This record gives sequence, C-alpha cells and structure tokens, in this order.
Amino acid sequence: MKALVFNEINKVSLQDVAKPQIQNPTDAIVRITLTTICGSDIHLVHGHMKSTPGYTVGHEFVGVIDEVGSDVTDFKPGDRVTGPPAMHCGQCENCRRGYTSHCTRGGILGSGVEMGGLEGTQSEYVRIPFADLNLVHIPDTLKDDQVLFVGDILSTGYSAAVDAEIKTGDVVVVYGAGPVGLCAVASAKLFSPSKIILVDMDPFRLKVGKQLGADHIVRADEENVLEVINELTNGRGSDAAIEAAGVEPTFLNALRCLRVGGRLSLVGIFSKDIAVPFPEIFFKNLTVRFGLGDLKNMDRLVRMIEAGKLDLAPLITHRISLNEIEKGYDIFGSRKEPVVKIAITP
Amino acid sequence: MKALVFNEINKVSLQDVAKPQIQNPTDAIVRITLTTICGSDIHLVHGHMKSTPGYTVGHEFVGVIDEVGSDVTDFKPGDRVTGPPAMHCGQCENCRRGYTSHCTRGGILGSGVEMGGLEGTQSEYVRIPFADLNLVHIPDTLKDDQVLFVGDILSTGYSAAVDAEIKTGDVVVVYGAGPVGLCAVASAKLFSPSKIILVDMDPFRLKVGKQLGADHIVRADEENVLEVINELTNGRGSDAAIEAAGVEPTFLNALRCLRVGGRLSLVGIFSKDIAVPFPEIFFKNLTVRFGLGDLKNMDRLVRMIEAGKLDLAPLITHRISLNEIEKGYDIFGSRKEPVVKIAITP
Amino acid sequence: MKALVFNEINKVSLQDVAKPQIQNPTDAIVRITLTTICGSDIHLVHGHMKSTPGYTVGHEFVGVIDEVGSDVTDFKPGDRVTGPPAMHCGQCENCRRGYTSHCTRGGILGSGVEMGGLEGTQSEYVRIPFADLNLVHIPDTLKDDQVLFVGDILSTGYSAAVDAEIKTGDVVVVYGAGPVGLCAVASAKLFSPSKIILVDMDPFRLKVGKQLGADHIVRADEENVLEVINELTNGRGSDAAIEAAGVEPTFLNALRCLRVGGRLSLVGIFSKDIAVPFPEIFFKNLTVRFGLGDLKNMDRLVRMIEAGKLDLAPLITHRISLNEIEKGYDIFGSRKEPVVKIAITP
Amino acid sequence: MKALVFNEINKVSLQDVAKPQIQNPTDAIVRITLTTICGSDIHLVHGHMKSTPGYTVGHEFVGVIDEVGSDVTDFKPGDRVTGPPAMHCGQCENCRRGYTSHCTRGGILGSGVEMGGLEGTQSEYVRIPFADLNLVHIPDTLKDDQVLFVGDILSTGYSAAVDAEIKTGDVVVVYGAGPVGLCAVASAKLFSPSKIILVDMDPFRLKVGKQLGADHIVRADEENVLEVINELTNGRGSDAAIEAAGVEPTFLNALRCLRVGGRLSLVGIFSKDIAVPFPEIFFKNLTVRFGLGDLKNMDRLVRMIEAGKLDLAPLITHRISLNEIEKGYDIFGSRKEPVVKIAITP
Repeated sequence: MKALVFNEINKVSLQDVAKPQIQNPTDAIVRITLTTICGSDIHLVHGHMKSTPGYTVGHEFVGVIDEVGSDVTDFKPGDRVTGPPAMHCGQCENCRRGYTSHCTRGGILGSGVEMGGLEGTQSEYVRIPFADLNLVHIPDTLKDDQVLFVGDILSTGYSAAVDAEIKTGDVVVVYGAGPVGLCAVASAKLFSPSKIILVDMDPFRLKVGKQLGADHIVRADEENVLEVINELTNGRGSDAAIEAAGVEPTFLNALRCLRVGGRLSLVGIFSKDIAVPFPEIFFKNLTVRFGLGDLKNMDRLVRMIEAGKLDLAPLITHRISLNEIEKGYDIFGSRKEPVVKIAITP
Repeated sequence: MKALVFNEINKVSLQDVAKPQIQNPTDAIVRITLTTICGSDIHLVHGHMKSTPGYTVGHEFVGVIDEVGSDVTDFKPGDRVTGPPAMHCGQCENCRRGYTSHCTRGGILGSGVEMGGLEGTQSEYVRIPFADLNLVHIPDTLKDDQVLFVGDILSTGYSAAVDAEIKTGDVVVVYGAGPVGLCAVASAKLFSPSKIILVDMDPFRLKVGKQLGADHIVRADEENVLEVINELTNGRGSDAAIEAAGVEPTFLNALRCLRVGGRLSLVGIFSKDIAVPFPEIFFKNLTVRFGLGDLKNMDRLVRMIEAGKLDLAPLITHRISLNEIEKGYDIFGSRKEPVVKIAITP
Repeated sequence: MKALVFNEINKVSLQDVAKPQIQNPTDAIVRITLTTICGSDIHLVHGHMKSTPGYTVGHEFVGVIDEVGSDVTDFKPGDRVTGPPAMHCGQCENCRRGYTSHCTRGGILGSGVEMGGLEGTQSEYVRIPFADLNLVHIPDTLKDDQVLFVGDILSTGYSAAVDAEIKTGDVVVVYGAGPVGLCAVASAKLFSPSKIILVDMDPFRLKVGKQLGADHIVRADEENVLEVINELTNGRGSDAAIEAAGVEPTFLNALRCLRVGGRLSLVGIFSKDIAVPFPEIFFKNLTVRFGLGDLKNMDRLVRMIEAGKLDLAPLITHRISLNEIEKGYDIFGSRKEPVVKIAITP
Repeated sequence: MKALVFNEINKVSLQDVAKPQIQNPTDAIVRITLTTICGSDIHLVHGHMKSTPGYTVGHEFVGVIDEVGSDVTDFKPGDRVTGPPAMHCGQCENCRRGYTSHCTRGGILGSGVEMGGLEGTQSEYVRIPFADLNLVHIPDTLKDDQVLFVGDILSTGYSAAVDAEIKTGDVVVVYGAGPVGLCAVASAKLFSPSKIILVDMDPFRLKVGKQLGADHIVRADEENVLEVINELTNGRGSDAAIEAAGVEPTFLNALRCLRVGGRLSLVGIFSKDIAVPFPEIFFKNLTVRFGLGDLKNMDRLVRMIEAGKLDLAPLITHRISLNEIEKGYDIFGSRKEPVVKIAITP
C-alpha cells in the first residue's frame, strides 16, 4: 500500500510499504478513508519533533474497520471510526489518574520509535492498539468531513476551552487562528461566553474564525491588542484566555489581558523558555494550565456534531488525494496560499 | 400612586397607596416601567403562599432609579435597573456562604410581613433595600422587554441548569413548560447539551419551548414520556433532568429517566410529601438538588442578552397596562387562553 | 478447597469445591489470606439480595497472587493484593464515564449468576477478572488486618464522605455506626471537619466510633438527636450528613439536621420507598447523593494507611478460621454479642 | 496612644499618635490586644513595598471592640475579634466575584495612601472599615495567641493549600519554611496528604515545620531536593507543590518535582521576572495558581482551632511589648537568632 514515509529531516516521500497486521489481540486495522496534515507533522519533518526514518507520518484519520484482534469487542469490520493521535491502555498509572494522553504503554501514531513505534495515518491502512479504548463509532448520518478533526485538533481545542473554565457571559480571548486556535474558538462557544475575541495576523484565518464563532477579530499586526480588549471589556479585562500560538508575544498579551481571577489555558507548544513578568501580574490571582489536550471527549463532540450544533467544515480549505500529499505538505507548510486544513483521500 | 393590593385570600384590587420613601441609607426608590405576574403571585392570592392583607403584590420589575439613600454608591436617579425578588444584605451567615436567596435580613418583595415586610412591584414605585447589592444596571442597548425576566424566572431557570450540571453533548429533560421551565430550557441551551427534551401537556407552551431551544417536545398527555426519552437516548437514559412542575408524576419520571450518574435539579415547588422509590432508583448514583434559585447571576445573564445570545422575548404573550392588571390575573391564573407571561406597564 | 456455599435462602454451608482456574487472559487467581463477612452477605443469605444456589459467598479479601493470565502485566505470583467487590472492565460506557461500580461487563464477587456469576471470597482461592484494573498492591510494611477493609467498606465510607462534600471546619453527622458508618467516620475525618457527630443506638459501636474519629456520639434511643445537633451547631444546623443506616427515621433526621446548602450522602441501602417531606425541607437548598460507592480510591486509601494516617484496625472485634465461619455468620448476623467485623483466616 | 510609624525608607519609630475615630457608620474601632510583625512589614520598611511616611505599620491583630459605627450590627463594644490585612466592601465587582482581597473600595491596613490610606495595627487601637464584613468573633475558649495568625498568614497558607488542590493520599511539597510556608504546612495537613515534604535551609524553621505537620524535611543547602522527592515518591513525582519562598530556584524545583497533572500554588511573592522552562515542563499538564490569599476562610479556621484540630502556637518564638517593637523588627528582619513570629502586646 502507499504511505507517506519520513526519510530524514526535511524529506518525506510517498512509498509502497507493507500493509499493517494485527499484532496484539486488542488491535484493530483501520482502512483510512480520510486523513490530513497537522502542524506537528511539519515540525516532525523539520526535525523539531522527533521521529524515526522509515516511519509513516500522520495521526488524524477517519476510516473503516478492516480487521480486529480476538479481544476487541466493540468494533467489527465495516464499522466507521475515528480516533486520537495518542493511544492509551487504560490501566497504567497515568491512565488511571485520567491523563490518558500520557499513557506509558500507548504511543503516538506516526511519531517513530521513541513515541511508541506506531505507524501513521497518511497511508491506506493503520494499526490501532487497544482499539476498544481508542476508537469511537461514527454515526451513519455524519460524513467523514464532519468528524475528521474530532480526535486531534477539536479535542485539543475543546480541552483548551475546558481548561480556561469559561462561564456563561464571560469574555474569552483566543490567541492564534491556526487549526487548533480555530477549534478552540468553536469549542469556547459551547460554554456560552458573551464575547469571543480572536487574535491573529492572518486575515483569511481570522475570517474563518468569524464563521466558527468569534465575535470580534483583532489583527495583531495592525491593532493594539491589549487596547482593543480593554475597550471590548469596558476596562474590566478578559475572564479567560487561550494561547494557541506558542510564542512569547501572545503569551505575554494573554497574561496581561486577564482580569483578577482570570484563567489562562496554554495549548500552543512553546519551543523555548519564556520570562514571566511576575511582579507585574502576580497579584491578579491567575490560574494557568498547559500541556497535552484531553482526548476523552470524542464521544460528546461527535454527539454535538451529530446534533448539528458543532460544525468544523469551514476548516477544510483544500482537498487532495494521497498521491498529491507531497504538494499538500508544501501548501500547508509554506502557507503561500490561504489554507487551514487539507482533506486527503487515499 | 396605584398598586395592586392583597386584600384577603382570593381578593386583590388596584388601589391608591402612598408612594414609598427611603427608610435606610442603603435604600433606593425605583419607578417601575414594566412588571409582570408570577406563578407564585397566584399561589399567594389563593392563600397557598403567605402574605399580609394590605401589602402590594409582585416581585418582577424593570424600572428607573427615582431616589437613592445616602449610602448608595453605584446607582443614581435616572439609571435603568432590574433586580431579584429576594433582597440580600451581603453580610449575614447565609449571604457569606453564598446563599443570598436565604438572607436573614432581606425579604421578598410583595410577600407580606413574615417575609420581610417589603411592598411589591405591581405598582408605580417600589423601595429596594441594600440597593447596591440587589440592583443591576441595564445597558442602553436593551429594552425593558428583554430584561424583564432576568431577576426572577430567568435566574431561577439558569440556576436549575447549573444545578443539573449539564455538560457538552449531554441529553437533558425539562419537565414543565411554564415560565420557569421555559427559562430552564433557554438556560440549559447555554451549556451545549446535544438534546433538550421538553415535557408538558400544553401544546402552546411546548411550541414556545421549541422557540427557546427545546430540540424535542413530548406531550405528556399523549405520549409515553419514558419510552420517548429511552428512544431519543438509544436506551442510555438522560444525563440530566430539571423538574419545573412540582408534582409527583413529573418528579418520578425525572428520577426514572436518568442514567447512572445522572443529575436531577428540582425547581418546581412541591406542595406535598412525595414517596421516593429508593429500591428502584438507589443504585443509579444520582445527585438531586433542590431549593430557591441562585440570584447572583443577573450580571452574566444581562451580558448574554446584550450580546444577542439569549432572548426571552418569546415568553411575552400579552401586554396590558397596570389599570388592567386584575384582568391579567384572570388570564394568567385561569390559562383560559394560551398565555406564558403578561408584560404590564404602569 | 473449602468454601462457604449459598445453598438456599437461610442456608449456607462450608463445602469442598473446585479450585478456580484462569478463564480469560486478564484473570488472576488469588490465594485468600484474610476475608470477612459483610452486611450484604447477611442480606444475601436471608434472600433480600439475590444469589444463585451453589455459589461461594463473600467479596472482601486480602490475598497473594497464585497465578495470572497471559495478559496480566502488573501482577505476578507472590504479590500481595486486595480488591473491590465489584469488578470492572475499564471500557464499557459506565466505566468510561467513571462509574466503574456499574460496569456492564464485570460482576460482583459471590453474588450469583445475575450479578456476573463470579464466585466469592469466603474460600481459599478466588478468580479475579480484569486483574490489572481491579487489584491493588499491598506494601510490605502493611499487615493483612490493616488493608482488609480497603476494597469494600472503607472505599464505600470514603465515597460517602466525598459525596457529602465535607469542607474544613464543617460539622458532619453520620447516621449509623455499622461497619460502613464507622468507615464513613474515619473517612470524614480526612476532610477536617470541626465536628463529627455519630448517631446510633448501639453503645459498643458508638464507642468504636469515638476511636475512629467521632467527636460526639448520640444515643438515638436515649437522646433527641435533632436537639443535640442543634445545640452542637449553635442552632446553625449541620453542614453535611451521611446516612449509613438505610431506614426512614435516620433519613428524615438527616434531611432535618442540615443547614441551608447542606449536603446529604445516602450510603445505607433503603429497602422501601420513603416519603420525602418536601414542603418542610425544599427551601433548604440541599444536595442529595446516593448509590454505590466509588471503588477507584483504593490506591489513595492504602497510601494513607501506609503513612500511618488511617487505621481501621479497631473494626476487627473477632478473629476466627474459615472452618468456624458458620459460627461467625451467627455472631455477625445476630449481634448477640458486641461485634463490628470478624477477620477470617482460611 | 503609641504606634509604630513609618517615617521613611529604613526608618520606623514608636511615636504618639492620635487615637482613631469612627469615620463611617460601618467602621469599628478595635483596641489591639496582640499584634505581630509580618515579612511584608520588613519589605515595606525597606521600600520594596509602598507606604506613606507618617502611617502606622502592621496588619495582624487580635483585639476587643472599643466602639462601633451606627450601621455595625454584628459587633458591639467588648467583643473579642480578629480580622484580615485587606479590607473589603462586599459590593464592588471584585468582591461580588469572590476576590475580596482585591476589593476596590477597601484597602490594606498599615500600607499608606495608595493602598487605601488605612492606619496599621502595631499600635493600641485601629479603625476597621466595613466591620461587619471584615471582623470575626473569637470564641471565649480561645486565647489571643491561638488566633493571632488567622487573618493573614494562616488564611494565606490555607489558601495556598486550597489552590494546590490536595487530595487524600497525595504527596505535597512546601518550599519555604517562613511563617507563610509553615502555615501552608499546617493547612496542607487538613486535606490529608500521605506525605508533606518541607524544603528550606533553616534547620530551626524546618524543626518547627515538623511540629506543624511536615512528614519529611529537606535541607536545600545540604541535599539534592529533586532526588529526595523522587525517592520519597518512588519516582512518581509530587502531586502538588506550594512555593512560599518567592525565589527562582524554589520555583524551578517546584515545577520540576511535579508529576503529570500536578498542581503548583505560588504564594511567595516574586520580586523579579522568572524564565519558565516550557520545553522541559510543558507536557506535564500542570495547573499553576498564584496571587493574594483568599481571606474568607477565617470562620472555618477559627472553628478548627476551637475544636483543637489546628494549632499555630509553635510559630510564636518571641514575646515582647509594643515598647520593644523596634528591637522586634531587628530580630525578625535580621534572623540573627532563630525566629518565626513575635507576639507583641500593646
């Protein structure tokens, strides 16, 4: 079968690889019907995140069960499914504490040997371990497009909104209108803030943010972000903020825009140390949460999509076939044309 | 000035009474611009809730500050305001614990001597004690109609939704499509359940419920309520239920429709003892909450209305002047024509 | 091997039965080193709880791993272990929602065919399904006596204390000084109430309650319970109550002793319907929780015992061998002599 | 009357000043019976925290009501009382949100014009605004010594423990054995961790920490802190950490000692920016909270002291009269002899 293989830093190529086989009785083999490229795939290709030469890339997918191991009870061949990037076993200490993204026996799809040695989803088939725990069923009424983002970026954006403890009537600021930031906007809306303010420099992505629920958009390159927020909150400051850009300026604005008692959820991945201006912000009594998203909300997110109350379709800006995936990487990585997410059909 | 006075059980009349005066430095006098009749006013007239002959009835209002006491700092004459039925002092033990509806120094507007001796709002003016704590400002952009229900029935319905701990994607059943039940529907929607199921026997009110956010309506007199819920939840049962009718059959259905771990919020006021079928429901691990609504959410509810994200206007089915209020009681009490709430202009 | 077998209602007998075998790769066989009799075993014998003739009784145990299935990774022969009465699979809907006591694929040890068909622990060996999920390790520093109650009655009492949301400085009333009520006392103490008031009619058990942390004991047959509580709380009422008796008078006292905003945790199992005096208590804004205890706290409870901060040893009033278990049932069931728990050595 | 007055940076002196008068009807005048010196007083004297020349210093006190304003209803002359450093009004936006330490109408005792212009407590009398909201009664059974720390450092330490979300059986590390750190130890114990590890360099204060509940003490100048914690947690890491030193090395150790999902409460006040090693700790999914302590727990803390379940007496290492207070500043500020807190009698 065809699969996009990581060859070395800055080099991936579509190759013929062996179809995956059941290795453990809790495994399932899924035939991929839709996949996509994630920002972390770009990081992986550039060597900012680790992988192993020879491994298939990718961790976002929708598919159909092809085969199940003897201990899989909830899925059978023909079932439509999706799942998360990080697999969990359900019984290690992190799993039992609820931190399934940190499972010590699972692994991350398409991330090479050190992350569990699981092959990726930019391919025709993928092996999913602990299938009963990691897969979710897709209702017949939903198309692949509608659930493509449930397992990774929507779960992550939703997790960011949960961590920001958004209450009815709050003002929430989302920094970064990339795929995760946009999912955070759509997720934040589920908690009924009175205003969602989205901050970015890309006018196209900000416009997509408006479609997904942002009430106000701020061009960070043209406007004074803190002044705009101050005005939109009548000087009170924001109740919650979500940082989905992972860089210092947005982190500092996020700390500064919050009112006393505000909550900051960091979901953008910081690649370097950042100096926190404690003397300036210490007495604001903030709560700051960060880390990997919680991937256990797929069920509730699918139910909202099924009910027609959550729609991530505006994220799909391009559609290509797996054969064209190398071109997809170029578009998604360079952003030389307006792009959010590229739906890829094997 | 004119005011609707409770004369004796089953008798209220519009009379001339003295305009209220500032009694304490924390008082404000509010000129009423809109008021309405509450289900509990009907109970009061019928003698099911206590009052004192000679007291003005009513506790829902929108108005304009006419005069403030010397210690009032946040309001001045001319400010548009609304407020709750139960006044609180902010410093008694119940207030300090957050149970301001149970303030031991406040009282309930229009409920006679035993409830604090405060006159009511079906009148031209009303005295509001502890004005800084009890009143909220109305933004210029909002009309009286839009905020008439904030202080009482919307706060109560919202409180019911909070107590039911509705999570994203949940199924919630609301029993009773009276004014409070309908506000519970609109409030439940703010927590993004996947389905709101509204149960009542009145087709007109059920229709209003659909406008306010109910996804499914169930005619309790024509359908098997538990079967419908079972089907709508694929046999899982409801995650949360709100009982806003205050009668045994709806209470029992509410207990029975819930899944393991479900939450039941009782906001309908029960006038008699009810036998709980513990052997049948004990092992479902339910949480049941009941009592007076939390009235401290007016600010956030006003912000949602101002943001255009919450609209209770469909509740107003009739408009009359204070002169016609006796007729209003007849319509609202008898429900001989389709009615939800009657907006009354002094 | 020897095992206490349920023959028919009101008849159990010590018999020779076959030693259990590994049936599934996730099973473990545990050699019992200590077991005991639970109140629910008495209900089972009397036919108030269901079982199946021929099944071994009992669900509380400490033991040593004898053999493990091929998929068990966290335990090996020789490991000392204990576990809960209800087994869970970790992947059914109830498990995923956190209600593992309601697992639809597990079962309850020693409760016959309808409850999963698992044999009991009043025996020499027992088969534990999903061993990795259901067993916990016992540190070398602890003796069997110290952890005998962790899996069932301590977990249940702890769960009751959690459900009662006890805050620092609260007053909490525990109704019922049976084994679960006494564990609720010891557990309540972990949340640092200022006063634990224990109510029962049995002076011996009340005395054990004092050893476990009760600050005040009330003889329900000699004192006016509500008056005593009123006095001990300076008229404020109790902040929290735990009902561990399962009868109407204690349930009603529990509702009545609470202050506005109080929490009631029901852990005593009610065998009949009970009329709730809603008109009397509705406006107290109570939260009531009931159902099966949460069995996922064994780890944290073992850590507290290991740290010397939790000691249930005072519960053991009798020690017998498995050969004498029929006599043990007589003593425990009849309470003809002061008894709390009987430690039984196979 | 005598009072310690801030004259200029590095100069305070005991002087005769005018006795405070009732200024507003909600004021009370309290005759001080016991006061003490706080670390922030030292910062104030050294100019690291702002004050205004001519203002009396100090904000910790126990006293007796001397006089009350006409609107004070809960206190009368002769009542024994204590209170917090920061006064709150109960009605500004921060108060209504529960952030009473950030009241915009109150002020901080003894901190000069910019912090509300309230005189301090290192004096014979002090004026307390909003007395009904800010004071708490002291039970007759308690001596001044026992409640001297309730309003400030105990409330702050307790707040730190609450923010660290300590659960039964957790391991919690407290960095800094100063007065607040020691109160955090005593407070952490109320949440029943299995182990409290206290880290400092001062052997005397570490010894006091053991008396207050620390299970393990670590000499940061002699031991490898992270290695010790790693060993004490069997490599799992700490569940919670409280930073009460306010310096970079302890902050970094606090971040590093935590397990996945750990909580960090910062209560030490940082005087400079600190670089957070995000790439190293980002994926640990931490929650970090910081800021002023919540001062609304005085009631519950007094109840615990009254019940004999909380005892801060070991903090008092010195006793002097107000006449000797300048010497007290020298001892407390220089720590040239072992000292924790100095009880000062006017």
